[in-house]
Amino acid sequence: MSRDICVCLDFLEDHHRTQIENTAARGGMSVHFFTPDQREQALAFVPQAEVLYSNIPALLQAGRQLKWYCCCYAGVDNYCAHPELFPNDECVLTNSNVYGLTIAEHTVMAALMLLRRMPEYMDRVARHEWTGGLAIGSIHGITAVLLGTGQIGQCVAERLRALGAARIIGVNRSGRPAPGFDETHPTGELDAVLPKAELLVMAVPGTGETRHILSRERIALLPERAYVINVGRGGAVDQQALMDALNAGRIAGAALDVVEPEPLPPEHPLWETKNLLITPHVSGNLTLAYTRDRNVDSFCEELGNYIAGRPLAHAVDRTRGY
Amino acid sequence: MSRDICVCLDFLEDHHRTQIENTAARGGMSVHFFTPDQREQALAFVPQAEVLYSNIPALLQAGRQLKWYCCCYAGVDNYCAHPELFPNDECVLTNSNVYGLTIAEHTVMAALMLLRRMPEYMDRVARHEWTGGLAIGSIHGITAVLLGTGQIGQCVAERLRALGAARIIGVNRSGRPAPGFDETHPTGELDAVLPKAELLVMAVPGTGETRHILSRERIALLPERAYVINVGRGGAVDQQALMDALNAGRIAGAALDVVEPEPLPPEHPLWETKNLLITPHVSGNLTLAYTRDRNVDSFCEELGNYIAGRPLAHAVDRTRGY
Repeated sequence: MSRDICVCLDFLEDHHRTQIENTAARGGMSVHFFTPDQREQALAFVPQAEVLYSNIPALLQAGRQLKWYCCCYAGVDNYCAHPELFPNDECVLTNSNVYGLTIAEHTVMAALMLLRRMPEYMDRVARHEWTGGLAIGSIHGITAVLLGTGQIGQCVAERLRALGAARIIGVNRSGRPAPGFDETHPTGELDAVLPKAELLVMAVPGTGETRHILSRERIALLPERAYVINVGRGGAVDQQALMDALNAGRIAGAALDVVEPEPLPPEHPLWETKNLLITPHVSGNLTLAYTRDRNVDSFCEELGNYIAGRPLAHAVDRTRGY
Repeated sequence: MSRDICVCLDFLEDHHRTQIENTAARGGMSVHFFTPDQREQALAFVPQAEVLYSNIPALLQAGRQLKWYCCCYAGVDNYCAHPELFPNDECVLTNSNVYGLTIAEHTVMAALMLLRRMPEYMDRVARHEWTGGLAIGSIHGITAVLLGTGQIGQCVAERLRALGAARIIGVNRSGRPAPGFDETHPTGELDAVLPKAELLVMAVPGTGETRHILSRERIALLPERAYVINVGRGGAVDQQALMDALNAGRIAGAALDVVEPEPLPPEHPLWETKNLLITPHVSGNLTLAYTRDRNVDSFCEELGNYIAGRPLAHAVDRTRGY
């Protein structure tokens, strides 16, 4: 009986397919590739597959014999919230921790755009108005608080450090140290570090625990000069409280790449909130060649683990949510 | 007879004034401070001053006994083009090379905005449209050509390196090596390096030699995926040729912080050029506290040289223009 891998993704190039096939061949496995528009064929094939590499919940549901589902995204909150998607309790879920670089570049860009008052300058430019003079800030010398110290947080920390940030404070569930941070604190100490945050970067997974973790009360703890950047999940922010704080000038500005709901409806008040830079969930994604290459690298590395019978490095604790 | 320093600037705070006074006192000099709205008083005083620290040409013209004029800006092309502004041939002109950090942060921001298609995303967001999916690029792995390897170019190179640029090529008049560059070439070799430029950053002074240095012919040498950023002087670019290339999609995009003329008239076609990010000459400026502090530090350091009879470190060759 052949051991089959079902791959259904829209971003693969020939060299990716060869790389996956070569890795699979070393374990005597064979790979069947589908694109998302070959959904019916993929659905017909997946019941016999042992491994699925995709981002389509319906395929997972149809995979009666799956032992491993590799999701090509980093955020797998939807899968963790819906155990019925897994037709087979033994099926291990892994996510792809390869978005750090692109999300960190987005974060650096957004931080500089906020610090340098670009939303205001771009309004002027849209009106064909040539006037300068706005007081600006710098990453050099800044104190940043990063809520989330995983792969994304670490890539952000590395870049803020290189650009001269004075102090980089990490906050995570347990307070465990993470590379690139001057200090790390458990979530329980978040209230104590927020008053220091000139820049607050949020890169936490969407779980019950992180829901509205940036609450109205915590927004009130931020200094007036603070900028907030969220690249994790929209639900981590009390969005109404953030809109209120921005419109009242209680904090200096924010950049949201994730919101609630997505897609954001055209009439939503968030679009017209003061000093808010909105981007349509594009900080990560597979739009960058580097990320696509690392995604396949990461799957192949993990496939090596799978074939050798080693534990999967990016296995998700579905009850914890990440 | 007292040896007088005339300072006429709008950005000084008390600690800056104390710092200047203390430095001057060590050489037995006394400092007279004016703000630009005390122009008449400053004009009445400057004829007896030996040193002027300002950015007002009329004060320089009235300074009959000036031995040193410290301009608080980096670009002094206007002074070099107008020798009649100097009432006294012995008067040394120095500029302030303290804008590297703020201009480099602008450049990193602009590069990421272009690579990550922010002008297009911001158009969508202005229309309350939540759609992603545009193919983006990264500073990681990029080949950058920096035209100008002075303080500004070096600060840009340092940041591109930290963000993972693969190759940083410098171009300057003589081809002399500069810190942070993988290779440097004389301007005569510019045509040979332009085809390699995925990112071209221009930070050259405004001189006869740099006028339209990015000519129509040279724009044609850039690869289609190239982005151009100009933070030096507008005249360094053949603006009509750049508009043509952008509107035709011949290169991927550009960010101009300097243009011709400034202010850019509301009806100018540059405002509506495709894939062009315009900012109103704000990459440098004294809008950042760090830059203001370094400006005063730099003047005081140079004042130490002046008092000790040492050559001034930032003396400008007025015939060369920088």
